[in-house]
Amino acid sequence: MRNIKLTIQYDGTHFKGWQVQKKGERTVQGDLQKALKAIFKESITLYGSGRTDTGVHAVGQVANFKTKSKLELFEVANALNANLSDDVRIINAEEANPNFHAQYSAKFKTYQYKILNSGVMNPIDRHFCLLYPYKLNVSAMKRASKHFIGTKNFKSFQGLNRSNRDQDTTRTISKITVKKQHNYIYITITADGFLYKMVRNIIGTLLEVGSGRLAESSIPAILAQNNRTTAPAAVKAHGLTLMSVYY
Amino acid sequence: MRNIKLTIQYDGTHFKGWQVQKKGERTVQGDLQKALKAIFKESITLYGSGRTDTGVHAVGQVANFKTKSKLELFEVANALNANLSDDVRIINAEEANPNFHAQYSAKFKTYQYKILNSGVMNPIDRHFCLLYPYKLNVSAMKRASKHFIGTKNFKSFQGLNRSNRDQDTTRTISKITVKKQHNYIYITITADGFLYKMVRNIIGTLLEVGSGRLAESSIPAILAQNNRTTAPAAVKAHGLTLMSVYY
Repeated sequence: MRNIKLTIQYDGTHFKGWQVQKKGERTVQGDLQKALKAIFKESITLYGSGRTDTGVHAVGQVANFKTKSKLELFEVANALNANLSDDVRIINAEEANPNFHAQYSAKFKTYQYKILNSGVMNPIDRHFCLLYPYKLNVSAMKRASKHFIGTKNFKSFQGLNRSNRDQDTTRTISKITVKKQHNYIYITITADGFLYKMVRNIIGTLLEVGSGRLAESSIPAILAQNNRTTAPAAVKAHGLTLMSVYY
Repeated sequence: MRNIKLTIQYDGTHFKGWQVQKKGERTVQGDLQKALKAIFKESITLYGSGRTDTGVHAVGQVANFKTKSKLELFEVANALNANLSDDVRIINAEEANPNFHAQYSAKFKTYQYKILNSGVMNPIDRHFCLLYPYKLNVSAMKRASKHFIGTKNFKSFQGLNRSNRDQDTTRTISKITVKKQHNYIYITITADGFLYKMVRNIIGTLLEVGSGRLAESSIPAILAQNNRTTAPAAVKAHGLTLMSVYY
């Protein structure tokens, strides 16, 4: 059996997230599995590096699937793209080691959250960033972000309402950057894994610091409480993009 | 009468361009005039700095209208935004001189064309850039672009199939830049005015130079012929954005 690794980009606006839903709602995995079936004439399970929520985008999502087909790699990518809508694209197909698994082999992932700090949304970016119309102290956000770096228990930043929450809530964030460019603020986080809603909960907390409602020094205490209700609310999904998965 | 100047952004994807159409198709001017009527309870003509074609975007379109209303400026902007779809936004409203006219007072305009030089479209950008999947010599494009700078007769770069073509086809391009950033190429042109399809015809020509099919030195001869059929075809509209209008 060949093991084929795909690199995938999508505009998440019109998807109910990555994972196939029981109700038959449109998902990225669902669309890809339908395209795989159309090409290979068999049901194929596609393993993603992880779920992305409704409205979340990706420029470097990774997934793998097994097949006996001898179709050349460039034909796999072309045939998939021909069978997909234009809001999801395969940008690379390559042969992977038989043991490669997009989720379990992943070492790090990088997410980026984009904020437009302005009174009015830019319509060109309306599906890809959060409009934040209040004054932000970006220097305070940069300093506060450093409190998240390292191996920590992120239970206070794990979303509550999901059946399959992770029991082990320790993760390692290796890098966070907060970058201002014109009216935009880009927050980029790299970790060995993310709990459900962890990125959006961290961004929500950084915005509370930036707006002056939360002291940057209070983050270690919030982390130490291991209690979701002590940290500020999550931000909306549509500003979030999965940038890359590292193996 | 007050003369109010608006700065407008729009995602042109779902508009049949700026100008009101007889057939009642959705246009930016049409949507704005409908919103003005809803707010001011009278028919108001909105004068734009110029038309943009179907699919062309704007982050700095300018328009003006006259009214006797005493509504405060921030309320004008807010009320318009509340009456518009989220693909068009008023980012500024200000009082203008009684003689100000968005079209006739304009001194310069800047357009930007965005090209993704890659084999596969990025779905996040699919409505905002041209996919160009062939190798491009960006240095040759930069050198070629210099031939367009100055006061010249751009008749060879004026679109043919439009009833109200300009008779005076002389324009002054004060600046062109060609900038590569990762897989993207941004071509930015500032001129005192643009003929119909002039930007897209120039970009089409620069792509022919970049791909090696046209010698960069042939541009002066194409300009000198004053004949549209001697210059390469226009590129698609959806990569084009009106950046700013200068008064």
